Amino acid sequence: MNADWIEQVRAGNPRAVARAISAIERGGEEARHIIAAIFRFTGRAHIIGVTGAPGTGKSTLVNEIAKQYRRRGQRVGIVAVDPTSPFSGGALLGDRLRMQDLAGDAGVFIRSMATRGSLGGLAAATADAVKVLDAAGFEIVLIETVGAGQNEVDIARNAHTTLVVEAPGMGDDIQAIKAGIMEIADVLIVNKADHEEVGATVAALEMNLNLKPKTENEWRPPVLKTIATTGQGVAEVVEWIGKHRAYLQAHHLIHARERARARAELERIVQHELMARLLRGVNGTKFDALVEQIVARETDVYAAAEQLMG
Amino acid sequence: MNADWIEQVRAGNPRAVARAISAIERGGEEARHIIAAIFRFTGRAHIIGVTGAPGTGKSTLVNEIAKQYRRRGQRVGIVAVDPTSPFSGGALLGDRLRMQDLAGDAGVFIRSMATRGSLGGLAAATADAVKVLDAAGFEIVLIETVGAGQNEVDIARNAHTTLVVEAPGMGDDIQAIKAGIMEIADVLIVNKADHEEVGATVAALEMNLNLKPKTENEWRPPVLKTIATTGQGVAEVVEWIGKHRAYLQAHHLIHARERARARAELERIVQHELMARLLRGVNGTKFDALVEQIVARETDVYAAAEQLMG
Repeated sequence: MNADWIEQVRAGNPRAVARAISAIERGGEEARHIIAAIFRFTGRAHIIGVTGAPGTGKSTLVNEIAKQYRRRGQRVGIVAVDPTSPFSGGALLGDRLRMQDLAGDAGVFIRSMATRGSLGGLAAATADAVKVLDAAGFEIVLIETVGAGQNEVDIARNAHTTLVVEAPGMGDDIQAIKAGIMEIADVLIVNKADHEEVGATVAALEMNLNLKPKTENEWRPPVLKTIATTGQGVAEVVEWIGKHRAYLQAHHLIHARERARARAELERIVQHELMARLLRGVNGTKFDALVEQIVARETDVYAAAEQLMG
Repeated sequence: MNADWIEQVRAGNPRAVARAISAIERGGEEARHIIAAIFRFTGRAHIIGVTGAPGTGKSTLVNEIAKQYRRRGQRVGIVAVDPTSPFSGGALLGDRLRMQDLAGDAGVFIRSMATRGSLGGLAAATADAVKVLDAAGFEIVLIETVGAGQNEVDIARNAHTTLVVEAPGMGDDIQAIKAGIMEIADVLIVNKADHEEVGATVAALEMNLNLKPKTENEWRPPVLKTIATTGQGVAEVVEWIGKHRAYLQAHHLIHARERARARAELERIVQHELMARLLRGVNGTKFDALVEQIVARETDVYAAAEQLMG
């Protein structure tokens, strides 16, 4: 990248931002160099995680939320995390439709992140892409994740405010309750609220919230209804995001969230790097030999791990 | 545990098996001692992973598959992995219904595993619970996971044969394609095949399979239709599991799968243990101070990681 790339990123130049994120996806020295150069310009964006099962209409909802912020004059970055394998071929129809919908608005930057190698790598690349958008002056950054697995939750949690999206009538269980992601929700949204079973889904979520022991001054997630396809209820979502942000500030919790995020990120990087060092130090043949011993039931995996670490 | 526990586990005594798995869930020295004692009796079971989104009816399907194996005279262990948080309170209604359905059959052992702490810990406990069931002489072990996140996929992958369950009409995208889990499927199942949109879901899955570049002798996952609530199509699922097993044996791939599994497990344990050792060695204050420096944007997380590892 040329000499003034960092000024171009900070000015929000879309090509410079896109190239920085691509470099981050490739990883390695260049990625670390970018983060080292921009981290001091981060910390201004309000980061919003959006998670929910496929079919809840959460991509449409994210688009509508972005439009609401645009009407309020704020610049919006969107990171759509899609753990689609190389096999199924990258960006899906939904992403292309989305591009059309918001295309031509320089105040919106959209980026899909796909799995390259491990999901751990995806989490790291997502966190770093958010830093680029933050440094590029996007006041709002939305991170959208497809699933409700722990990794997706970790990605969404990389946020100040987390929205959990449900849709009624998707089966006999509610994704958020079943997958245990209720407790990371700051705002619960039942999308597709024109569906007849919406009342039952809202009631089930409310009931679960009521089961939770309360502490004083604790944030109580609202359960909101939206119809993303018509935009109905989306302004209220944005209002509640604002209320949550104000709550975090009033209770000095922004710093606590940042600290938890920094801690998790530091642990992840150290863990990965320690393993890489061990594997560089250990004779590859020794590792393979231990694997064969486990397969042959000559040693158990914990004993093999002890041997490997000396 | 008393002196002859290992004989009791090997004899398939349900109380001994349950207690061994409970000890494994608690972790620590006792868990390692159990694994060290039983690993040499493992390697006999055919391990079947079953994954799919909530609402696909996969618990019912797992029950029906278990019944099919019982009719064939085989003993069946089921590990239902439920990443339900402590918050939502452990075993759900579905598990209790399931217990009633298969209760009283000594040839079936069912165990729900819930998240205690990290999902990484859950993956380890699940792998070890499967070893206990294997050592206890269950010829078939089914591992059922709720989600389609990478961690759930890793858990299901701890298997010789992996079933991916879909249901028609759950939204505008197909979970398996969207989440990139097609390539781990050995058998694709569209459950709730009495639903009108079943044809479209089958066609979408078949189309994706056809997109995949073929190599000679490669396994081609069948796309099967079932109605788990009536048992329809389940015998065919069990036949295809048998075909897949025969394929693995004919192409000497059982050993390759075992090796990949042992390698992944060894890496996971070493990574966890290295981190624990680092944290024991590092002054807690130093770690905290680095976190604060990251939050204050005085250092970036990669530079902090370098400092921590010296």
